[in-house]
Amino acid sequence: MAYKAPVEDMIFALQEIAGIGGLEGDGYPEFDTELIAPVLEEAGKLASDVLAPLNQTGDAQGAQLTGDGVVAPHGFRDAYKAFAEGGWMGLAAPAEWGGQGLPKTLANAVLELFHGANMSFGLCPMLSLAAIEALVEHGSEADRKKYLPKLVSGEWTGTMNLTEPQAGSDVGALKTKAVPNGDGSYSVTGQKIYITWGDHDMAENIIHLVLARLPNAPEGSKGISLFVVPKVLVNDDGSLGERNGVSCIGLEKKIGIHASPTCVMEYDGSQGWLVGEENRGLACMFTMMNSARLNVGHEGVGVGEAAYQTAYEYAQERKQGRAEGVDGPAPILHHADVRRTLTTMRANVMAARAICFACGVAADASETAENEESREAARLREDLLTPIAKAWSTDMGVEVASQGVQIHGGMGFMNETLAAQLYRDARIAPIYEGTNGIQAIDLVGRKLALADGKAMADMIAEVRQTAREARETNDPQLVQIADRVAAAADALDEATVWMVAAMKEDREKGLSGATAYLDLAGDVIGGHFLTRGVLAARKSGGVMRGRMTALAGYFAETSLAEAPGRVSGITRGGDAFLQESEALFGVS
Amino acid sequence: MAYKAPVEDMIFALQEIAGIGGLEGDGYPEFDTELIAPVLEEAGKLASDVLAPLNQTGDAQGAQLTGDGVVAPHGFRDAYKAFAEGGWMGLAAPAEWGGQGLPKTLANAVLELFHGANMSFGLCPMLSLAAIEALVEHGSEADRKKYLPKLVSGEWTGTMNLTEPQAGSDVGALKTKAVPNGDGSYSVTGQKIYITWGDHDMAENIIHLVLARLPNAPEGSKGISLFVVPKVLVNDDGSLGERNGVSCIGLEKKIGIHASPTCVMEYDGSQGWLVGEENRGLACMFTMMNSARLNVGHEGVGVGEAAYQTAYEYAQERKQGRAEGVDGPAPILHHADVRRTLTTMRANVMAARAICFACGVAADASETAENEESREAARLREDLLTPIAKAWSTDMGVEVASQGVQIHGGMGFMNETLAAQLYRDARIAPIYEGTNGIQAIDLVGRKLALADGKAMADMIAEVRQTAREARETNDPQLVQIADRVAAAADALDEATVWMVAAMKEDREKGLSGATAYLDLAGDVIGGHFLTRGVLAARKSGGVMRGRMTALAGYFAETSLAEAPGRVSGITRGGDAFLQESEALFGVS
Repeated sequence: MAYKAPVEDMIFALQEIAGIGGLEGDGYPEFDTELIAPVLEEAGKLASDVLAPLNQTGDAQGAQLTGDGVVAPHGFRDAYKAFAEGGWMGLAAPAEWGGQGLPKTLANAVLELFHGANMSFGLCPMLSLAAIEALVEHGSEADRKKYLPKLVSGEWTGTMNLTEPQAGSDVGALKTKAVPNGDGSYSVTGQKIYITWGDHDMAENIIHLVLARLPNAPEGSKGISLFVVPKVLVNDDGSLGERNGVSCIGLEKKIGIHASPTCVMEYDGSQGWLVGEENRGLACMFTMMNSARLNVGHEGVGVGEAAYQTAYEYAQERKQGRAEGVDGPAPILHHADVRRTLTTMRANVMAARAICFACGVAADASETAENEESREAARLREDLLTPIAKAWSTDMGVEVASQGVQIHGGMGFMNETLAAQLYRDARIAPIYEGTNGIQAIDLVGRKLALADGKAMADMIAEVRQTAREARETNDPQLVQIADRVAAAADALDEATVWMVAAMKEDREKGLSGATAYLDLAGDVIGGHFLTRGVLAARKSGGVMRGRMTALAGYFAETSLAEAPGRVSGITRGGDAFLQESEALFGVS
Repeated sequence: MAYKAPVEDMIFALQEIAGIGGLEGDGYPEFDTELIAPVLEEAGKLASDVLAPLNQTGDAQGAQLTGDGVVAPHGFRDAYKAFAEGGWMGLAAPAEWGGQGLPKTLANAVLELFHGANMSFGLCPMLSLAAIEALVEHGSEADRKKYLPKLVSGEWTGTMNLTEPQAGSDVGALKTKAVPNGDGSYSVTGQKIYITWGDHDMAENIIHLVLARLPNAPEGSKGISLFVVPKVLVNDDGSLGERNGVSCIGLEKKIGIHASPTCVMEYDGSQGWLVGEENRGLACMFTMMNSARLNVGHEGVGVGEAAYQTAYEYAQERKQGRAEGVDGPAPILHHADVRRTLTTMRANVMAARAICFACGVAADASETAENEESREAARLREDLLTPIAKAWSTDMGVEVASQGVQIHGGMGFMNETLAAQLYRDARIAPIYEGTNGIQAIDLVGRKLALADGKAMADMIAEVRQTAREARETNDPQLVQIADRVAAAADALDEATVWMVAAMKEDREKGLSGATAYLDLAGDVIGGHFLTRGVLAARKSGGVMRGRMTALAGYFAETSLAEAPGRVSGITRGGDAFLQESEALFGVS
């Protein structure tokens, strides 16, 4: 199938829902909303023409570990070259390091296209972005000069090395050691697992960011430092020197993203340099965690969009049964149940996209808004939306990919269909970059408490404002949507009040409802953004008016209508399982 | 991981929820509820000791097509021999053909164990069961004598051949031809796809049931006849004769159930015999469709149970983070979010199991109840519950398998974990034996109309009776559950009234809510059965009292509490997508 950049939906979500236009001005002197369409169209060509054709072949072949290290599937090397030469890596990077200084939100939109066309490929620049951000924020001047220009140009790629076998969600349990060499560098030794694109042949160097412990560092998360460890040492004049003592010693065999090598990395006295302060490695990681999590959310959107497009294409081609007004066997698109599934898919993809873009715009504004008050408000919004963007969008990606399989019937279970691959690929996103359970704990444990609850209170106030505006149109369709939005806002409010109290008074009880709370928040906020979309589309008209009215109307009558009934699952669900244990869980 | 037969839960569901005891008596002279435990324990040994150890090796190796036909993965041949020698194939078959004449419900319970231990393996006897049923009901006396004893003993296996490339859900579009040979036999020619265990080396003969068209047969579904086509021709004395002209010419490469060969079958002038009347093939298929669909529902339960057990085991072993009362890193079972996920999994597995068993008991009673009135009532119940048992349980299987992956974190994405395999295996069940969309259409289009709506009306009355009984206990926990059950029954009632009217007045509108209606019905009926379970467990006591109270309480506060909010998705969801088309679905 031909992946098509959903430029229309993306521009609409960026401008009419997420308000990216507000970023024009001093913060981004190079940015103008007129740029959005040409950037997305150009990136869309690379996605459709270069990356999409490699998606299924890359899945079938997979990345291979050879005596010379990891080899990417056929065609990936050239595709990566085209990606780097197109300047896509530096879209949002600072101009002083060779970037174009555009909003990250725009770069995220481009990344959604690459993920949609080829999620395995998209992971490589996603990890480079994280490495760039770590070095921009915390690298020494020498390290920044040494690594950033080549990372930003895409000539080199980057990785993040956190996980060890005993240290997954609990990063503080890691054991990799870093011993000072006496010359300002460190000798890093240990094994890291699940390292995405940890080794490959698409670039001449790979810059690893590695969490490790200094000698005598405190135990747990307060004794972790961050190091930059290049695959090939870089001389002071920027030329490449000796190979460093770091290698990929194994590739994981995974359900999906076969073309993306998931490496076991061996650091064996590798030469590395401290990034940021000693024992402050986790804090350094946290500064880039928001954007990494948001990027994974976009991955869910990308794979969901691809699943939608594949299913829609199949529904137009596959003929089964009869339908009114069609001679002979009818395309299954004519069957009401198939239309329902496609609508569910698209409404959820669009809602997740809106949440992710709104989160991105907030993140950009938190750095560039004119005054501190606006920056602080934007920061709160970014903090609030990040775990929702990550978890809700990636759960959505899995669900939508599964619905795409279902529309394909028996064909969807065959590995040769893209739908099947997307079902396998999508499953990783709720797991990495902080499992969705961790996102839910972050939301209720940290984000709801920020600024005395202001982040969520402001959000709910906006949802209610949307309901009011929809009601004031006096259009019966919109008034109906308004009622659903308002009731959903009340439900989220009620759940929030309970959650904030529970997290203070009985933390376990609060945590017992965390995931259900995040799900509800995502539904309500997603429905709010779709409704804002209808309000905007009534003015702009065109095809988006019909589309947004249908998507928002459907979402209001399904997900939003269910919202009030979901409060008790949050507030009372835990009663069942917090006390019972062996009787509840045992098997005999 | 070690799959453990969940004997306790199954006995409870069979006796205390589904009321299998009511089948004792004249209809099943050999049956006594005292038999249930030893049968399940014995079958559980085969499942745990023989089938489960082959599950992951079978997945890794897969079935292979060789010059001599299909070869099952290593160990499967011996396992099948043990299965046949144990007499498991004939548990519910008529005594006159060598079976034990026990209720099908008990045989279904045994099949759940085999599916849970090894879904690929379980498919082989499941297809044999369908072939046995077809021949018992519709075969000529000669054919029954020829094939049934060896099928019932498990020495031979059976298959069902419906699908062709252009004829999936629309079986009426099939093109395979059957031409009379003049000697009472027919020459069958055509290609069939997706034939489960269509060829293999575990038995010396395979009896294919094949849908085909006679010369000059009417077009569409009214011109289809059913034929029995043995892989090896059988002489009149029962000895094996010549190979018949039927072979597997290809195996599908699938997401999951790798050990189960999914065959492209070539019938090339194969000798076959008519089963039932000419052009009545679909009617013959329909008589066995209910039980085949119910069996697939049990597959969802089996794979869901396996996913639950694997996740629970992992949650006990995997240590991450801290928990109150635990020194050092705590097993993740101590984390509230993990407990919530496990509870969700188990509650849904138990609800689906109860629906499937209740459907089975109704199916058995429809044949053996004392008077025609009882048989008719049971038949209505079977008809009503069959599409729900199939669709709701298999959707549940996919969802629960995905939750099992999530509990495993990164490990869950690795093919080496059973959780990953279950996620891949589970995905087929919502597709075959009538997609879940087809089940929903069957429910709203045919089953709701039966006996002027009596089937669902009686069901809802029972749900309300359950609510009353729960309320009358005056136990606050049960009164709370009663309120949820009663509100959910009202929601189902409201949706049913709307649906029945819509299917008469505006069929497309009715169909637009079909899947959402089936989902709601499954939730409400599942919650009803869990609540019946609590009521029974209060009397029986023991570990099931705590377990059922927790599971029913959780389900009531989540799925049942959401039920009222889901009516509008059924009644109004279609407004969005029945009219809009290009504007709603187009991509640019």
